[in-house]
Amino acid sequence: MQLDDVCWQERYNANEVFTIQCEISDKPDMPGKLIAAIGSNGLHIVNTTIVELTENTKTLDIVVFASSKEQVDNAENAINDAEGMKVIGICDEVMEIHRRGAIEIVSRVPIESLTDLRMIYTPGVASVCKVIEETPEAAYEYTGICDRIAIVTDGTAVLGLGNIGPLASLPVMEGKAAIFAEFANLSAIPVLINSNDPDTIVKTTALIASSYGAIQLEDIAAPACFEVEEKLQKLLDIPVLHDDQHGTATIVLAALINALKITNRKPQDSTVLMLGAGAAGIAISKMLLNFGIKDIVIYDSTGPIYKGRTERMNPWKTQIAEITNKEGITCPLAEGFKDKDIFIGVAQPNMVSKEMIASMAPNSIAFPLSNPVGEITTQEAAEAGAAVTADGRSLNNAQAYPGLFRGALDARAKKISMEMMIAAATTLAKLAELPDLLPDMLDRDIHQQVAEAVAKAAK
Amino acid sequence: MQLDDVCWQERYNANEVFTIQCEISDKPDMPGKLIAAIGSNGLHIVNTTIVELTENTKTLDIVVFASSKEQVDNAENAINDAEGMKVIGICDEVMEIHRRGAIEIVSRVPIESLTDLRMIYTPGVASVCKVIEETPEAAYEYTGICDRIAIVTDGTAVLGLGNIGPLASLPVMEGKAAIFAEFANLSAIPVLINSNDPDTIVKTTALIASSYGAIQLEDIAAPACFEVEEKLQKLLDIPVLHDDQHGTATIVLAALINALKITNRKPQDSTVLMLGAGAAGIAISKMLLNFGIKDIVIYDSTGPIYKGRTERMNPWKTQIAEITNKEGITCPLAEGFKDKDIFIGVAQPNMVSKEMIASMAPNSIAFPLSNPVGEITTQEAAEAGAAVTADGRSLNNAQAYPGLFRGALDARAKKISMEMMIAAATTLAKLAELPDLLPDMLDRDIHQQVAEAVAKAAK
Repeated sequence: MQLDDVCWQERYNANEVFTIQCEISDKPDMPGKLIAAIGSNGLHIVNTTIVELTENTKTLDIVVFASSKEQVDNAENAINDAEGMKVIGICDEVMEIHRRGAIEIVSRVPIESLTDLRMIYTPGVASVCKVIEETPEAAYEYTGICDRIAIVTDGTAVLGLGNIGPLASLPVMEGKAAIFAEFANLSAIPVLINSNDPDTIVKTTALIASSYGAIQLEDIAAPACFEVEEKLQKLLDIPVLHDDQHGTATIVLAALINALKITNRKPQDSTVLMLGAGAAGIAISKMLLNFGIKDIVIYDSTGPIYKGRTERMNPWKTQIAEITNKEGITCPLAEGFKDKDIFIGVAQPNMVSKEMIASMAPNSIAFPLSNPVGEITTQEAAEAGAAVTADGRSLNNAQAYPGLFRGALDARAKKISMEMMIAAATTLAKLAELPDLLPDMLDRDIHQQVAEAVAKAAK
Repeated sequence: MQLDDVCWQERYNANEVFTIQCEISDKPDMPGKLIAAIGSNGLHIVNTTIVELTENTKTLDIVVFASSKEQVDNAENAINDAEGMKVIGICDEVMEIHRRGAIEIVSRVPIESLTDLRMIYTPGVASVCKVIEETPEAAYEYTGICDRIAIVTDGTAVLGLGNIGPLASLPVMEGKAAIFAEFANLSAIPVLINSNDPDTIVKTTALIASSYGAIQLEDIAAPACFEVEEKLQKLLDIPVLHDDQHGTATIVLAALINALKITNRKPQDSTVLMLGAGAAGIAISKMLLNFGIKDIVIYDSTGPIYKGRTERMNPWKTQIAEITNKEGITCPLAEGFKDKDIFIGVAQPNMVSKEMIASMAPNSIAFPLSNPVGEITTQEAAEAGAAVTADGRSLNNAQAYPGLFRGALDARAKKISMEMMIAAATTLAKLAELPDLLPDMLDRDIHQQVAEAVAKAAK
């Protein structure tokens, strides 16, 4: 199946791809009737191929974009009810692409002779072991840890799915690993941890950490994710990065740099309303402060976070209350929007109204990033007066983390510092062609340039 | 470098491969002088290629087999001391082949369009997660666990190197993973555990086990290895196999089946002296008993193991004492050899004399398997009267474990049973062309046939 650059989700709000195989009687009007039957059920046709011809029939493979399996079931019934056409089979292409997993391990050298075998394995390998035993640093040169990342998760905060457990989160981790491999030649390995206890996650990860050059924490719910990350960073001398915090923050800053440029704002004069005080909300706030934005008010489901608030706090909210909301605002969310330059949502779907956006400063910036459904649609935000908008579909972490890790590993950095993340963000911003906020993430060169900027910032 | 099927270790007792780059003056007698200088230092020349010509000089790459780096250093000095030739550079090919590691992770599908990306990763991947959340068994179909093995080690008993720690053992684990990939399309991942405590190894492995379809324990010292394996097999419902026990036992049984055939013996009438009561010695003994051999006496460094012995015992020796040495022999090693049909050594180099072998039954079978130097050389054993011999270089676990795991995973077996291992051994024996005891391990089809036999035995 070749779909080229068709961008199904943006265009059709379609999350699924199916191939429907149909047999029709071989008359000139039948293909049209078949396609019409499919289209009348809301399916978008991507590709139609004739795969078999018999004396009286044609067999076609029709690739469609769907927003649900139900649409496909309805189309199947309609086709089977019509004369001269029937469905032979339906293939769920998303499931197929994940069959046997998205990644595999290959030998970097072919083993075709006994000599190959005896160099790769015993007895030859013993000399490599001895070198590393004497000089552990040599492991970066003569093993795969220079490229190898653990993607550690407990499966408690997976995409928009929530706490689905580690095993059900595995396709996401494999997808991330496939992205690491394709965009940055990194070998990332899902590490599913069967425990939600932060201390157990920390201990387990630390015990197996020497197999890896870096650790990416992924889809661990807040506030456990903060504790796990902080403790692991202290315990280990390799980079530990929680993607939902720092990957997201890097991408948001990159997009925001361009949004400020488009709306002619300076960071130090811009005001931010951040909705959401989970992993992303707190990490984005910290990065924006580091970048030079001075005025941020964070709201969670209880209201604004301010110094001295006692209700539903945790150590991380208490810490961020020290450096945000300097005026100690306590007003409800709708009032909080008034005259703000920038709205960033990393909370829940549909929490923000057009009125709230309309009350912001002229030419406001609105990033309703909650996934898969935003706090408000970008269309509504634009209608309410936002000059620049982006949602969770257009700001994708996958633009940031391959280059962040590639750069950190290439520089043999012991951690991924704020400076390295800001270097990644400014590089991404620079490479975008305005009015696009971010560059094309399929362009491998983008990731390489991010990696180089990150490695430079590490030194 | 193309070395084809030259088998360096057998032939030259050479553990290392180097490329020496030399510049010589371009006269017809100089190549001969250069080669002579290399050969006179004991290096075996594999390949000579001219890589550059200038007006007055030739540059050659000369690939050599060496038994030590010292030989190469001596050759370098000899070349530099001679007129009209000099060494430009020396490349350690074994180190080179391990540069950046022996394995890498690749995406099984190219990510070339946004549609690819959104099927592999968010939002498409969510539907795969949901299927697995509802039906965990579906993870075998839609993630990589059907092919994914953890190679778990604490680095306490690595090859002949002993306790070198987990990091220095990584090249061995990567070598194993490369073999898994090349011979059985399995994705094996080194899991280095920074602890020698059996309980910690068990707990850590169990906590991350859901990422894998099977566990291979590797190079964990006895008796910790027994405890780790037994506990993990009880805790997990996926195959757990300690290669140093069961991989080795499978290969020894395969070779022994053919050795019995060559010497016209039946298992039930054959007597065995096993030297070594570590992981391999105990596991081989158990497998031979299961195969039908009735009379085995195991010696360790203290002497024969018998029921009631108290000195230097452990629970596993006590258990094996119940089912071996039925006559309760207590005589020293030299006497123990008398009239035995089969000697198997998995202990220490040079512990066995020609006299011991000579005292065995006529047409005896001798497998001195200690690595890298055997209990006696196969040549000496043959001179002392052994009709069939094999050492640790010719009996290689790598012939057994790829097929064992492939078969177990294909059958979705919950463990690798004795029957499955014996099926692997009898299949390997059957595929050998006598007088070879084992088939050519580079032949991929061998591993496939082992896998099929193992999968059949699992059902």
